[in-house]
This record gives sequence, C-alpha cells and structure tokens, in this order.
Amino acid sequence: MTNLKEVARKAGVSPSTVSRVINNHPYVNEEKRNRVLQIIDEMNYIPNINAIHLKRGKTNLIGVVIPFSNHPYFSQLIQGISEEAIKLDKKIVLFQTSYDTDQEIDALEMLKLKQLDALIICSRNISLTIIEQYIEYGPISIFENITHSKLRTSYIDHYQSFLTALNHLYEHGHRNISCAINRKKSTSSIERIAAYKDFCIEKSLTYNDNNIYENYVLLEDGYDLSKEIQKSLNPPSAIVVSGDNTAAGLLLSLNDDLKENLSIIGFENHKISKLLNLTTIEIPLINIGKSLFNQLYDKSVSNQLFETRLIARQSVKNINI
Amino acid sequence: MTNLKEVARKAGVSPSTVSRVINNHPYVNEEKRNRVLQIIDEMNYIPNINAIHLKRGKTNLIGVVIPFSNHPYFSQLIQGISEEAIKLDKKIVLFQTSYDTDQEIDALEMLKLKQLDALIICSRNISLTIIEQYIEYGPISIFENITHSKLRTSYIDHYQSFLTALNHLYEHGHRNISCAINRKKSTSSIERIAAYKDFCIEKSLTYNDNNIYENYVLLEDGYDLSKEIQKSLNPPSAIVVSGDNTAAGLLLSLNDDLKENLSIIGFENHKISKLLNLTTIEIPLINIGKSLFNQLYDKSVSNQLFETRLIARQSVKNINI
Repeated sequence: MTNLKEVARKAGVSPSTVSRVINNHPYVNEEKRNRVLQIIDEMNYIPNINAIHLKRGKTNLIGVVIPFSNHPYFSQLIQGISEEAIKLDKKIVLFQTSYDTDQEIDALEMLKLKQLDALIICSRNISLTIIEQYIEYGPISIFENITHSKLRTSYIDHYQSFLTALNHLYEHGHRNISCAINRKKSTSSIERIAAYKDFCIEKSLTYNDNNIYENYVLLEDGYDLSKEIQKSLNPPSAIVVSGDNTAAGLLLSLNDDLKENLSIIGFENHKISKLLNLTTIEIPLINIGKSLFNQLYDKSVSNQLFETRLIARQSVKNINI
Repeated sequence: MTNLKEVARKAGVSPSTVSRVINNHPYVNEEKRNRVLQIIDEMNYIPNINAIHLKRGKTNLIGVVIPFSNHPYFSQLIQGISEEAIKLDKKIVLFQTSYDTDQEIDALEMLKLKQLDALIICSRNISLTIIEQYIEYGPISIFENITHSKLRTSYIDHYQSFLTALNHLYEHGHRNISCAINRKKSTSSIERIAAYKDFCIEKSLTYNDNNIYENYVLLEDGYDLSKEIQKSLNPPSAIVVSGDNTAAGLLLSLNDDLKENLSIIGFENHKISKLLNLTTIEIPLINIGKSLFNQLYDKSVSNQLFETRLIARQSVKNINI
C-alpha cells in the first residue's frame, strides 16, 4: 500500500509537505501543492484519515446517548441532531442504552479517550455527578433543566407544562384527574409529580398516589392503561398522559363507556395526535435536537429553554361541575 | 499529558512492550506486564485509543445508512442493529441521508478510509455499481434482494409479499384494487409494481397506472391519500398500502362512506396496526436489523431471506362479487 513517504519521494517534497497538503494547511507553495495532488492521484494514495485525526486530536464524531431508537420521542431528537450534524460534516455515534448505565459510561469514556469530539445526552440513568466529571474532556449537551453546571442544556419546563395540562382539564370542569408517566424517578417525572401535587393542593383536590400510573411509555402501553382505568373503582374523568404515543394507544383502546366519558391530554404533538384529534402539549423535539447539537459548538456554555404550548383538540370534553 | 514513552521509561521497558500490554498482545512476560499496568495506573495514563485503533486498523465503528431516523420502518432496523452491536461492543455511526447520494458516498468513503470497520445500508439511492466498488474496503450488508455480489444481504420478497396482500383482497371479493407505494423507482417499489401488474393479468383485471398512488410514506401522507381516494371518479373497494404508518393515517382519515366501503392492507405489522385492527403483512424489521449487523462478522458472504406473513384483522371486509 502506498504510504505518505513514497508520495513525498516521488513528488520531490518532504513528507511534512505532503501532510500539509492533505490537511489543507496554508503556506504550501501552489506549484508544490499541485504536484503532490497529482502524485496522490497517480498513485491512488489513500491518506489514512485516522492518522490525520490523531494528529489533529479530532474525530468529527459526536456521541448521542438515547435509551431507545424506535420511540418517536427519541427518534425526533435524533432526526434534529442529524440534520444539523450533516451541515457541519460531523457524524453521529449512537449509544442506544436502554437506560443501562454501563452503556452511558461507555459513551463518557469514549469522550475521555478522544474517540468522540463531544457528547449529547438525550436521557440518562446515571447520576449527574458522574457526567460532570467528564466535562473537562469535551463539550457535553443534555436535554434537561440543569443550571450552575458546565453542561450545555436545551430543555423544557416539565413542571409548568404539566400544570398547563392539569389546569386545562380543571377549566373544563374535571375534578377527578389521573396522570400516566414513564419512569417515576426520571427528572422529568419528578417535576411532573410535583406539579400534580401542587395542583391538587391549590385546587383543594385530594392527592392520591394511586392516581399516578407509572411506567407507561409505549404505544401498546396505552392498551394496558385502558384496562387499568376500566378496573378502577373510582375511574377518573380525565387523564394527563406524559407522551402522545401512550395517549394514542389509550384513546384507541377505550371501551364505549370510557370513549364517552374520559378526557385525555398527551404530550409532544406527535403526528398521530393530530390524526386522532388528541389535545396535547407541543414539545418541539426536532428543534431541541438541533439545539443540543449546535450548543456543542457555541463558545460559551448556554441553557436554552424551549417553550411548550397547549394544542386544544377534541379529546378534552366539558364536564358538569 | 503522560505519553507512552514516559510509561515505558518509568517501567524500565521498551515502548513497544507498553504497546503490547495495552493491546493485550500475548508474549509479554507476566512480571513486565504487571509492572507496566501498575505504572499506567500510577501515572493515570490514558492510552490514545485512536492510536491503538490506527495500529490495529480497526475502529469498532459500524456505519449505518438510513434515509430517516424518525420513521418506524427505519427506527426498528436501527433498534435491531444497535441491540446486536452492543453485544460485540461495536458502535453505530448513523448516516441519515434523506436519500442524498452525497451522504451515501460519504459513508462509503469513510469505509474506504478505514474510519469505519463495516457498513450497513438500510436503503439507498445511489447505484449498486458504485456500492460494489467499495466492497474491497470492508464488509457491507444491505437490506435488499441482491445475489451474485459480494454484498451481504438480508431481505424479504417484496414481490411475493405484495402478491399475498393482493390475493387476500381478491379472495374477499375485491376486483377494484389500488396500491399506495413510496418512491416509484426504489427496488422494493419496482418489485411491488411488477407484482401488481402480474396480478392484474392473472386475474384478468384492467391494469391502470392511475391506480398506483406514489410517494406515500409518512403517517400524515395517509390523510392526503384519503383525499385522493375521495375525489376519485371510480374509487377502489380496497387498497394495498406499502407501510402501516401510511395505512394507519389513511384509516384514521376516512370519511364515513369510505370507512364503510374501503378495505385496507398495510405492511410491517407495526404496533399501531394491532391497535387499529389493521390487516397487514408482517415484516420482521428488528430481526432483519440484527441479521444485517451479524452478517458483517460472518466469514462468508450470505443472503438471508426473511419470511413475511399475512396477519388478518378487521380492515379487510368481504364484498359481494
């Protein structure tokens, strides 16, 4: 295989000149540059890009930590991240963790070992303290509301968004309201539960842990959720479901009685919510993905709040108070 | 920053011995190995993994070419690929191409430049001839029915699958059958159109290009498709839609008349098809993703056919002949 030295010898220049040409370094005499490029072409020389990256200390690879690929919430983030990465000619290395902390550490270690230039964390299981130990090795952006840290963040206000949904139901006369969330201990769920508790206190409604359905995240989970609600002794008149996917599954699984009597609000404004006329809180996930990527290249660390908004459709009905 | 030479000096061994220890090379004296590991630990030396990869000629990075991330068809493939990659401790580099051939070439060039160990092509726009020029640089697997090539393939029989769907409708009495496909010139569409033509000839039905609706792939495309069908002068009694996503969108957008009178078959057996009671042809996409990955590590080039099967639900009705 042709190597750099052979190219240099044949072109009558030093190996470092060849290297400078390959790296698009300035201060190479135009005539020499053309000669080197011609020899490279003639000898069909393939510069070892890994060697070039090694010298530059850059790989142009950006790690993306996500729990699952085949969930619309996360695939929209990936879509946004990828759209921006293409513009800067960066490549995305996907760490599909299933919330396994070993996989999360793997991504952080690759940043440390300079196998990645930077890291985007879409959702995590590992503690923030551990992530923060890796900030010195490269920029890290995260989809989470964290300040007082060197992490670059794009985030939404889960507390306020959840409260908006609850108040919308209250304004439509609902007093017996349940919630369905994903992992109870995730940072977003903690904010949502806090909003629910505060809402109950403010409106003088009885707060009950049993009104919070946990671990509902997939489309098919909506079916299970409908069964849970049906067997409840005191079924709610309305439910806030923390994702459109599950909300859609729920809506499509309701029996005739619940279809008539259960109001539903989802989150995301995923495409299916429009088709199903599902009231939802829009989360601009593709734009958040774009922001998470672009923040990596900002000179200063920033925290970007993304607004959410209620999109009222037909899945919330008025109830007589 | 500590470098390999300093470790060698302090351990009283040659740099190549340190290198052999880091690379888990055999034939290193046990006592020397322990001494080097101890010094590495004491000096908090981080081996430059990129340099190690450079020597080994391996990156442990596998490229995955997909048009979009946020479509269930492709996100299921990514899910399957990633699940297998984790087992071998390989990382996935995502090339989200939007069918832009420049992006596809980018992936192939990275394989050539040894920035990737291997490549998986889930869907392509670029010609096969160009892809085949890169086989010498590393294993390439592709989700497509190609034989007589050094490409490793996992595939389904699009022709036969489409025919199964058409025959199912015929058996239920349908004679006025339309199709909705994605890109007309994709290899899968070419097979599907061939199946449709042959079906029409065999059953003595009039073949008409206008009965093939093109460029329908997204959930929301199903809404547009419903509008197209509604304005048709001779609306079909049944339609084969080449993806559950669009089929679901169509089903949810039908007006009362079509809801009563249009039979629908989708493809994939995506989760939503079960919730909507949509008859579909199951495509085992997660398993195909797994196979595409594992084929890269097979010693010999193989072609894996995956079976599809009809799952009859309620979206196909009998019609009086």
